[in-house]
Amino acid sequence: MIGIFDSGIGGLTVVKSLMEKLPGYDMIYFGDTARTPYGTKSPETVVRYALENTDFLLKQGAKLIVMACNTASSVAAGRVAEDYDIPIFEVVTPATENAVKISNRLTIGVIGTRATVKSGIYEHKIMALKPDAKVYSAACPLLVPLVEEGWMKKPETGMIIKKYLQPLKVRQIDTLILGCTHYPLLKDTIQRKIGKRVHIIDSSIAIAENVKFFLDTHPEVDSQLSKNNAFKLFVSDITEQFEKTARATLKRNVHLEHVEL
Amino acid sequence: MIGIFDSGIGGLTVVKSLMEKLPGYDMIYFGDTARTPYGTKSPETVVRYALENTDFLLKQGAKLIVMACNTASSVAAGRVAEDYDIPIFEVVTPATENAVKISNRLTIGVIGTRATVKSGIYEHKIMALKPDAKVYSAACPLLVPLVEEGWMKKPETGMIIKKYLQPLKVRQIDTLILGCTHYPLLKDTIQRKIGKRVHIIDSSIAIAENVKFFLDTHPEVDSQLSKNNAFKLFVSDITEQFEKTARATLKRNVHLEHVEL
Repeated sequence: MIGIFDSGIGGLTVVKSLMEKLPGYDMIYFGDTARTPYGTKSPETVVRYALENTDFLLKQGAKLIVMACNTASSVAAGRVAEDYDIPIFEVVTPATENAVKISNRLTIGVIGTRATVKSGIYEHKIMALKPDAKVYSAACPLLVPLVEEGWMKKPETGMIIKKYLQPLKVRQIDTLILGCTHYPLLKDTIQRKIGKRVHIIDSSIAIAENVKFFLDTHPEVDSQLSKNNAFKLFVSDITEQFEKTARATLKRNVHLEHVEL
Repeated sequence: MIGIFDSGIGGLTVVKSLMEKLPGYDMIYFGDTARTPYGTKSPETVVRYALENTDFLLKQGAKLIVMACNTASSVAAGRVAEDYDIPIFEVVTPATENAVKISNRLTIGVIGTRATVKSGIYEHKIMALKPDAKVYSAACPLLVPLVEEGWMKKPETGMIIKKYLQPLKVRQIDTLILGCTHYPLLKDTIQRKIGKRVHIIDSSIAIAENVKFFLDTHPEVDSQLSKNNAFKLFVSDITEQFEKTARATLKRNVHLEHVEL
């Protein structure tokens, strides 16, 4: 199976993209709802959580891991890849690759949680590909709670997004990376506030394309993955909100199983 | 020592009140910053966390426990009191007692996290004291992240508070319980939005008065508590924000110690 984890609900946007690009593949998802959010916590704590989550998914039979969380990808991907001898995918690399491909003037904005922005990983990865790029980042810590509350269409959310994007707008970015798997759920408002000529990079689509490309070129891994259209959904805390959003995002019936890590 | 815990930073408003009412008493605080917030999580998970936190404080030498978190108080106080044979204080009871004392028309509003409001504990406790009272509650799940971000004075915060209070205003409440230890940090804005004639009950002050009264009338417990003006601060995750807010709230130097539960 493909194992996917996130701090909570955001990673389901990655599952949705994976289901579109790799229909029929069995998937197992773990949402760490008992400890969510990760974006305000220290790197040490996020690394510990990422290792525990990976461990759990492997025990459940995952043969490939997708870290569907930008915060975990930013601060813990190196450590998880070191500790485990299976393919590990993180959301940062494919998003940066897509961004430098599409950006005309290499003036790129990144929005994410406080932890993701503080890690500096997007700047680092973009500069490694294009040393002359200009990268501007903005932490948007309130967007995750706003999405978790379902306030996607509220005027207050629009005002807060406008305030967060202002410093990036001033820099006249031509491309904006949504560096958090919750943000695709706010894509329309973000596009409106940043301006319609700015390219938006959705990291959930970028990573799904990346995994598909890897499996197409690595049949020895692909053959290990079962394809019975099964989907298992584990959470560390069962809340009503999660079930509702999961059903709406994936457009299929879901059954939540509870697990304590 | 007096042991105090909260999901994160909010309980420091209780520490502040305790330090004012009981100067010199040694205190030990645990902020569960690695698993914060509690207010969006299920009762089962919050009970588990409350028991683990209490256990930790007792091992550190606490002789009396203050649950400085409305969510934990609402869903876990009964269970913690059952499991441990020492005085356990929760924030709900003193706040409701103060509210029914001060309310003229017994038309009382309560604001809190989703878990606190869903528990119905404030209604239950107020009706037990005054069966003819009218109680109206509103969940305000975005206020905790807004406080954690330090957005206390931002116009968006004012708009969000106004929106949350609207249904209580329509009911013409004469008293409003701040059913979350984060909310005293928003007290001025809340007072302005609900109207200056509404009495506001700050649960952090109510519980400190309650603990003081108990110690005044229970010298056998009081004599077990050391009084060297010591303050120990443990957190499950060390973040910059916490240290800053702790220093600003308590107006003294603090030293954070990290502990994994």
